[in-house]
Amino acid sequence: MNRKTFLELLSERVLFLDGAYGTEFFKQGYKGAVELLNIDTPKVVEDLQKAYAEAGADVVLTNTFSANRLKLRSMGLEEYIRKINENAVKIARHAAPGKLVLGDMSSTGMFVRPLGDLDFEEAYNVFREQAALLIDAGVDGIIVETMSDLKELKAAILAIRNVSTDIPLIAHMTFEADGISVTGTSVEIFATLMNDLDVDVVGINCTLEPKDMLPVFMRLAEYCHKPLSVEPNAGKPLYNKGVLTYKSTPEEFAVYMADFVELGANLVGGCCGTGPDHIALMSKYVGKQKPRQRTVRNDQFLSSRTVIKTVEPFLVIGERINASGRKKLQKSFQDMDYTEILNLARKQEEEGSAVIDVNLGIEKLLTHEHFKQAVLELDRVSSLPLSLDIQDAAFLETAMREYVGRPLINSALAREEHLNSRLALLKKYGGMLIVLTMEKDIPQTAQERLSVAKKAVEIIKANGVDLKRVFFDPLVLPLGAGSDYHVTLNTIKLLTESGLQTSIGLSNLSFGLPNRESINAAFLGLSVENGLSAAILNSKEATTMNVLQGCLALKGKQLGTTQNAIDDEL
Amino acid sequence: MNRKTFLELLSERVLFLDGAYGTEFFKQGYKGAVELLNIDTPKVVEDLQKAYAEAGADVVLTNTFSANRLKLRSMGLEEYIRKINENAVKIARHAAPGKLVLGDMSSTGMFVRPLGDLDFEEAYNVFREQAALLIDAGVDGIIVETMSDLKELKAAILAIRNVSTDIPLIAHMTFEADGISVTGTSVEIFATLMNDLDVDVVGINCTLEPKDMLPVFMRLAEYCHKPLSVEPNAGKPLYNKGVLTYKSTPEEFAVYMADFVELGANLVGGCCGTGPDHIALMSKYVGKQKPRQRTVRNDQFLSSRTVIKTVEPFLVIGERINASGRKKLQKSFQDMDYTEILNLARKQEEEGSAVIDVNLGIEKLLTHEHFKQAVLELDRVSSLPLSLDIQDAAFLETAMREYVGRPLINSALAREEHLNSRLALLKKYGGMLIVLTMEKDIPQTAQERLSVAKKAVEIIKANGVDLKRVFFDPLVLPLGAGSDYHVTLNTIKLLTESGLQTSIGLSNLSFGLPNRESINAAFLGLSVENGLSAAILNSKEATTMNVLQGCLALKGKQLGTTQNAIDDEL
Ligand SMILES: [Zn+2]
Ligand SMILES: [Zn+2]
Ligand SMILES: [Zn+2]
Repeated sequence: MNRKTFLELLSERVLFLDGAYGTEFFKQGYKGAVELLNIDTPKVVEDLQKAYAEAGADVVLTNTFSANRLKLRSMGLEEYIRKINENAVKIARHAAPGKLVLGDMSSTGMFVRPLGDLDFEEAYNVFREQAALLIDAGVDGIIVETMSDLKELKAAILAIRNVSTDIPLIAHMTFEADGISVTGTSVEIFATLMNDLDVDVVGINCTLEPKDMLPVFMRLAEYCHKPLSVEPNAGKPLYNKGVLTYKSTPEEFAVYMADFVELGANLVGGCCGTGPDHIALMSKYVGKQKPRQRTVRNDQFLSSRTVIKTVEPFLVIGERINASGRKKLQKSFQDMDYTEILNLARKQEEEGSAVIDVNLGIEKLLTHEHFKQAVLELDRVSSLPLSLDIQDAAFLETAMREYVGRPLINSALAREEHLNSRLALLKKYGGMLIVLTMEKDIPQTAQERLSVAKKAVEIIKANGVDLKRVFFDPLVLPLGAGSDYHVTLNTIKLLTESGLQTSIGLSNLSFGLPNRESINAAFLGLSVENGLSAAILNSKEATTMNVLQGCLALKGKQLGTTQNAIDDEL
Repeated sequence: MNRKTFLELLSERVLFLDGAYGTEFFKQGYKGAVELLNIDTPKVVEDLQKAYAEAGADVVLTNTFSANRLKLRSMGLEEYIRKINENAVKIARHAAPGKLVLGDMSSTGMFVRPLGDLDFEEAYNVFREQAALLIDAGVDGIIVETMSDLKELKAAILAIRNVSTDIPLIAHMTFEADGISVTGTSVEIFATLMNDLDVDVVGINCTLEPKDMLPVFMRLAEYCHKPLSVEPNAGKPLYNKGVLTYKSTPEEFAVYMADFVELGANLVGGCCGTGPDHIALMSKYVGKQKPRQRTVRNDQFLSSRTVIKTVEPFLVIGERINASGRKKLQKSFQDMDYTEILNLARKQEEEGSAVIDVNLGIEKLLTHEHFKQAVLELDRVSSLPLSLDIQDAAFLETAMREYVGRPLINSALAREEHLNSRLALLKKYGGMLIVLTMEKDIPQTAQERLSVAKKAVEIIKANGVDLKRVFFDPLVLPLGAGSDYHVTLNTIKLLTESGLQTSIGLSNLSFGLPNRESINAAFLGLSVENGLSAAILNSKEATTMNVLQGCLALKGKQLGTTQNAIDDEL
């Protein structure tokens, strides 16, 4: 089944996933690696899947949750990887003819850097191997579930899409009751990155019983633009005299699952503790329903692994990590000494930056490892979202692969080949993009800059990228070189009137002049009044930050409050 | 001779004043009070005046330099005041038939408050008495000369004009070589106040020999819009074996006086040490000349006794002396405790205010003495120029009489009778005026506010007041009350496009809101971009002051530098 058919099906009615495998085999007394059943006693697997099919599941999952090379290796089963995965698909097909069979994948069981020692590319290769086995064996799609690390999930998604761009793909994370994963990622951060990545359905599963999962799901439903799936546990696990039970009854479960459908779930099923009884009652109780239309947040967010920031009403991008023309900083970056980067990241967060621009200086002096390490170090200290200020497309891709969250790319020229290459990265890895209103030379007039932007808009549309993900830079030139700041102001005005978002590199204006802070602040105020949406600026400049707050207050908006409102929700 | 005839004559050719009286009588061995000659030996006076007339003087001065009641009293001659002045006019007329006879007046010899104990109104009455005697006796005009205190000169001018508005009036001060009088007033402060007061000719005399007076005269010529007169001493006085001589020869003197004519002098004569020989050579050497056209500074200035500030490129008016709604401050003002006023004046000067607004709070709790004392106290500490923020017209006049320099009046309504009363004070005492763009109620739209301003413009023109002396206030209303700040911005734009200067009360915008500094700063930036010329603001707000500097820098202007450029000149 290809993606188009799958998505059409999803738009027609709510589909039922199956229930748990591990906990069901455990109830039946099986205590070993459940993946081995695919080889040793396939009948056990087949019977459970038959039961799920009979209970009304539209979708059965292959018994391959832990069947990636690293996880199997930890269980001493590495040599069976091919057989386990291939058999799993055959068993499921046999057990549930006419049903959708999704290849089930989950964590490697190891932590990806910087949380652990596993390199992102290793994780990627592990997932790629399992995905290829499942897809070659003929699954209808893949579900990656119970992931607690957004970065590991990202590796899995990229790996699966490297094997097939045409297969349906469902991506799940698992959250605590506060909506934050054990690795610090909120459901909003997850949702907003999944909006960008090439997945078809976004969901949550495991950890929580339905009652506790409902508020987390509501947040997912508010932030995610894609079809949703959900698989709660049957309840909190209880050990009683050696017997594991889950406290929700199938009846309670079914009633709750109807609530998830009301809130917009497209696929509903069960995780730990749920069995065929839960699925049977759920499918009966929910019945054939058209999926609900949801109201989703339409604004934009940038995120790191642990911090999410709204773009509205204004995005402050801290400029201070920039080695251009600063020899000492450049040298420390070359030496992979990131002390100053981390220091500046922390300071800029205190100053009120929402996003941190990272410019490591002269790129021909650097290697891929420099960019990779910079992203890892900033992730390690839970930094703000990053603006990846990288000229070289290959270096940029390295940074984007390693990045956890939704970054800003700074920047693309409006020239077709340049812009296309950055849009490709944007589509693959997610995020937002600044597009300069110039192709090669700087247009002299606001009208010319607008024309360049409009050409870029056509290219962006042709790439299928939402214009909301793009800022146009109206180009700020140094006053000292005799430039007329009104050209930039007028360009902001024209771009804003055309419904486009704008971002400027503020400090360039006052380059070489005395009293830079005053000049920057004054110009920022005028720019915001003309509609500016974002600026890369020196957040150490109190005047600039204060004026920004004042400009927003004039419009009845507040920088801090809006962002805190989100933070409070998390 | 009336003023019109006198000014026509002045426009046709350079006129010659006479030389010294006191030093000539001294040379002749006369050692007593020279005014007594008018009674005892009028022939001595008449002979000197005949000599001056024959030397080519177009104008002779009456021998009444010290003939005011206070000065005569100090010499024990008070009882002869009428006779001295009346005889002086008769002698001059007789000595120089066909020549202009100007009644000569000078200082009371006492210091006016706050420099001394003499009350301004006492000085005024003393000058009024002498002026009335001279005018009744038939002088063609009056010259007030050798004044070193601008306040005493102002009393004399107001007194003379109280006797006659139709008599020609020449006002002189005397300056040290640095262009500053012994009481701290610069020639620019003198010139810019004289531009406003109802005098016909402005000049300098005494203290300096021609060489040293020339640079001071050049400054006068740059700042003064009226015809100019000049009377240098003959040189530095030298006592040698009991004989007083002046080192310039009549030849040197004549050559210098031609230079003054080249620089724009309309009336040239001599002060101490000059005699008929000097005047004869001067009149011969200069000959009949048409007065030069001068280029004068056309910008506006506000001043106190000792400080002058440019209005361009932007006028910062410090708002912090304001008792409205501040009970403790109000109480201290009622008790005539001006400690806090002086403290706030000093602080605001440090913060970068150019002018200091003074609002003593609820006026019905105050008396004329409160306003008078406030002005005196601020003068005593050499404060910045004041903005007299006074509602009651009588209190305002009291403050304006006492004020030394060119103040700002804050403010008039555009309503005819209200505006006329303030314009009358402006014409009488000098200064600049803020006119609100409202008559009774606040117009809702920018166009309506512009219309109100245009009505006010007609009233101002009808009063013969230069529009450059007026700021229009586009009205800033509290954001918190739901007002749209764009109305004010648009009003600023419309007024600016109409060639009018604008001033706002900035802080009103953020009344009752948190983070006022940011809001004020942001709005000020937008206002300056729209053309705003001045603002009453809280100069303690660093953000506001910084943004202002930045806005001006965008336009290639600098607040500090322009003002310092003037300060440096002084
Ligand atoms: Zn589970
Ligand atoms: Zn599960
Ligand atoms: Zn003299």
